[in-house]
Amino acid sequence: MEKHKIEVCYSPALYPFYENRFAVVVVTDILRASSAIVTAFMNGVERIIPVGTLEEARAFKEKGYMVAAERDGIVRDFADFGNSPYNFSPERVKGKHIVYSTTNGTNAINLASRGSQVLIGAYLNISALARHIREEGKDLLILCAGWKNKFNLEDTLFAGALAQLVLEDDHFSTICDATLGSIDLYNAAKGNMMGYISKVAQNGRLKKNKLDDVIGYCLETDRTELIPVLNEDYLLVL
Amino acid sequence: MEKHKIEVCYSPALYPFYENRFAVVVVTDILRASSAIVTAFMNGVERIIPVGTLEEARAFKEKGYMVAAERDGIVRDFADFGNSPYNFSPERVKGKHIVYSTTNGTNAINLASRGSQVLIGAYLNISALARHIREEGKDLLILCAGWKNKFNLEDTLFAGALAQLVLEDDHFSTICDATLGSIDLYNAAKGNMMGYISKVAQNGRLKKNKLDDVIGYCLETDRTELIPVLNEDYLLVL
Repeated sequence: MEKHKIEVCYSPALYPFYENRFAVVVVTDILRASSAIVTAFMNGVERIIPVGTLEEARAFKEKGYMVAAERDGIVRDFADFGNSPYNFSPERVKGKHIVYSTTNGTNAINLASRGSQVLIGAYLNISALARHIREEGKDLLILCAGWKNKFNLEDTLFAGALAQLVLEDDHFSTICDATLGSIDLYNAAKGNMMGYISKVAQNGRLKKNKLDDVIGYCLETDRTELIPVLNEDYLLVL
Repeated sequence: MEKHKIEVCYSPALYPFYENRFAVVVVTDILRASSAIVTAFMNGVERIIPVGTLEEARAFKEKGYMVAAERDGIVRDFADFGNSPYNFSPERVKGKHIVYSTTNGTNAINLASRGSQVLIGAYLNISALARHIREEGKDLLILCAGWKNKFNLEDTLFAGALAQLVLEDDHFSTICDATLGSIDLYNAAKGNMMGYISKVAQNGRLKKNKLDDVIGYCLETDRTELIPVLNEDYLLVL
């Protein structure tokens, strides 16, 4: 029997070369959009509407929606709050529909929307995600949000961790160099993840804006079984 | 004093996000275009004219040029020979002008042509290349030819090896995640390079076409001091 294949795409700009309509697509933006989205569902949000542009986010705000929007780690003036998982507290988000626009993550989600199923992945839900992907029994494509279309290490490490978990099921295999590279980088880093992450570019950006308090939390595994899934143009829990 | 920065671009499709007109750009396509080009100069070729499309290559052939052209490892019928470094023997190439078109490498060279200086890099000339880059004292951008715009491991390992050599000079530094990832992958692989390369996708492709005899040669370091450089629209020796 042919095995389900795993591929990793390191940048939204490379997505056309990896696109696979029969695949489950996992979008990840570890620092911080995908970690924040998973947290929002842990805290009871009902829907998240990912929008690519600030103009769209502003238009939703004018219609009365609660809006989380930032660029380069800075909350936009018209928004209710920004991109830190800590912002998505139960008091703020429980039972709500929230519009969300970030530098990299939300564009990646919209790009992936033609996949067979689009899921949001973070360390916070990694084991539940791997189990679900194995049960689905389809190809897996992991889309790293990256940084302004450049490669980033934190999303790559997560892709390697997830690919390795899914590959424990021998119905899956990979001949994708990006997947093999991710797995090797993850295994090099996993003994001291905080140390490794301290050298990545995004760590420097978050530190500069005093937003790095959240990194340890974003690296915590299996805080939830919830898996956000894209349904038409909004995210809900699978 | 501000240091010269090093960046690695994993795919021609990502080049617009890394382009730096003040940088020395090193184009690499280890299996096999950049290794073949360096070999051709070792064997006395005078000029190599890289062309992106097969139509251009055919047009040069009709004008009487000697043409090396392949796609997916297969020599095209109108061409004199294909992409293996072994094809560029002294008997064939000494003193000649050769037109060259490959699946990935020649497009990458043409893309990079707006850099401050465009060099061709392979393990065969890696130490000479690192010395020259340090002497130039400019930013360094390493462009991996990849595979049809996808990430590949063999070019990435080379980028890591070259970046690490250049970084021994503390006038250079990097905050580029792709550079840091390349260096970590190179260091994970370097103890058993042939073993590591045996798992990459391009190894499978070359094996299938019985073209993998050349891999060991393409991983040999410092066979020459020659550095091919782009001058307008052709390559010559620096």
